[in-house]
Amino acid sequence: MTRFMDVHHGMEGITADQLAQAHQADLAIEHEENVHFEAAWADPESGTVYCLSEAPSAEAVQRIHERAGHKPDEVHPVPLQV
Amino acid sequence: MTRFMDVHHGMEGITADQLAQAHQADLAIEHEENVHFEAAWADPESGTVYCLSEAPSAEAVQRIHERAGHKPDEVHPVPLQV
Repeated sequence: MTRFMDVHHGMEGITADQLAQAHQADLAIEHEENVHFEAAWADPESGTVYCLSEAPSAEAVQRIHERAGHKPDEVHPVPLQV
Repeated sequence: MTRFMDVHHGMEGITADQLAQAHQADLAIEHEENVHFEAAWADPESGTVYCLSEAPSAEAVQRIHERAGHKPDEVHPVPLQV
């Protein structure tokens, strides 16, 4: 399992409810690919959302996010953490 | 206090030790601007580092990172979190 940071652009104006609903949509199906979305942070002004996950691959992160309705623009493994 | 995500590019090949040292350099002076760096994640392959902090302003995050020797390329407020 590797940790990943993925980034969504174009989310200008996202609300707390929309972020919570998007996260719930991920949590509802993530087990099918052995992914776990741990946290997400959003900047409604620049329209950027960052999601932190643990997953077997970047492709698994991509697939869960895409099936949940919000394909990410970037998925980076982040093997180092402090 | 607001939460911020800042991003550093061009950090290809960063090691766990270098990430830990950079974080320690922030922690050593962050109190001077009432900033707290909570966590950082690095992708040595793409050279990207993400830092999560709480701070009074983006400028305070920028100044502490710059004085610690690693000016960020982007600083985004992330007022929403799940």
